[in-house]
Amino acid sequence: MKKYEKNGTVSYCLGTTLVFELLNRKPEAATKIYISPKQNRDETYTKLVTLAKSHHLPVIENNEKIFKELSDKDNVMAIGEFNKFSDTLIKDNPHLVLVNPSNMGNLGTIIRCMAGFGVLDLAIIRPAADIFDPKVVRSSMGAIFSIRFHYFDTFGDYQKEYGNHHMYPFMLQAKFALQEAKIEKPYSIVLGNEATGLDRSFLDVGTPLIIPHSKLIDSLNLDNAAAIALYEFTK
Amino acid sequence: MKKYEKNGTVSYCLGTTLVFELLNRKPEAATKIYISPKQNRDETYTKLVTLAKSHHLPVIENNEKIFKELSDKDNVMAIGEFNKFSDTLIKDNPHLVLVNPSNMGNLGTIIRCMAGFGVLDLAIIRPAADIFDPKVVRSSMGAIFSIRFHYFDTFGDYQKEYGNHHMYPFMLQAKFALQEAKIEKPYSIVLGNEATGLDRSFLDVGTPLIIPHSKLIDSLNLDNAAAIALYEFTK
Repeated sequence: MKKYEKNGTVSYCLGTTLVFELLNRKPEAATKIYISPKQNRDETYTKLVTLAKSHHLPVIENNEKIFKELSDKDNVMAIGEFNKFSDTLIKDNPHLVLVNPSNMGNLGTIIRCMAGFGVLDLAIIRPAADIFDPKVVRSSMGAIFSIRFHYFDTFGDYQKEYGNHHMYPFMLQAKFALQEAKIEKPYSIVLGNEATGLDRSFLDVGTPLIIPHSKLIDSLNLDNAAAIALYEFTK
Repeated sequence: MKKYEKNGTVSYCLGTTLVFELLNRKPEAATKIYISPKQNRDETYTKLVTLAKSHHLPVIENNEKIFKELSDKDNVMAIGEFNKFSDTLIKDNPHLVLVNPSNMGNLGTIIRCMAGFGVLDLAIIRPAADIFDPKVVRSSMGAIFSIRFHYFDTFGDYQKEYGNHHMYPFMLQAKFALQEAKIEKPYSIVLGNEATGLDRSFLDVGTPLIIPHSKLIDSLNLDNAAAIALYEFTK
């Protein structure tokens, strides 16, 4: 048993809450459940084992090592192993497009926020953080099992496939403020990298928007910008 | 020279950008500037030294040790030392009230977002994360030097002083959605702890609001909720 591998075929979700999310939202991806020898044999334990068995999943209860290998916290009592997956995005649904997101915590938080606002289709343009890294899975609070996502090598590749979408790139150079935007469906909210944003070529894509802010800051945090955009587009 | 001390009288901002924020926004709090021996003697260096000297601040260039003690990153080239400060909140301004915030990264991100939306008065109800921890200063991207904040022992203490404010506690049990709220000034946006939110007693405070979200998640991340509230209240 080794630590998480970026190029491997499986990943892990750490903690009882996330394992329940995996089993309830995406049981077809699950391959194995580990339960810590330290986990009390209580109601949660029984529920977890029953749920895992109902999906015909092996439940391994004597592998303390994997808990040390995958987590630096002592309070992780269950680990779910799952096959990495990918989806086709739904054409008529709203999309969120992240161009070169690099921060794993941000990526997870944004996924959680997407699930919260019912925007369930995520396009990620490479180079980008690895969505299957257990840190992303954790910061998504398991919402990764509730959304669809797909990686694209370039934004052009994404556009080719979803040319029917009205694109709304968020950029500081945009002329129109988010709150004044006329939103046409199906839409794609497009956000750039944490440090560099979207490059100027996106000024020619769809309707660029800005979330106006004071001069006291250079820009909003990426996950805050995503939260505000998701809130405004779906309200 | 020791590492940052919660009960000490000074704190530190790490990195050239933050030092510039300190010197430009809150020079009266600055006490010393450290420049790493590794910093190139370039234009940034000259600008930094000139600015520090214009505020009559000592510039220390041969203390490599403090860089190791305060930062685990190799790319920090300047450190600003400053006296901890506290402010009186302005009575007629909009306020953000954080009740028992515990995550330092969240606290910093929220401060950055406040500065972005021009809500510049922050009340923090104890127990709470230490706003002067260099992690908070860093995640605020220096916006901590652009806002006013004050700690209170209880929410009651805050209310007593700012009874003229319309209070808008954000809670999952609220009846009214944020987007339907009639906002009366001066207002206070009140947000609870990351894990536990606000307790039910806040249902009797002002006008409780909810940011509606799907059942796929338990709640929004605190800093996302703050970002959305700040955006909607100020737009």
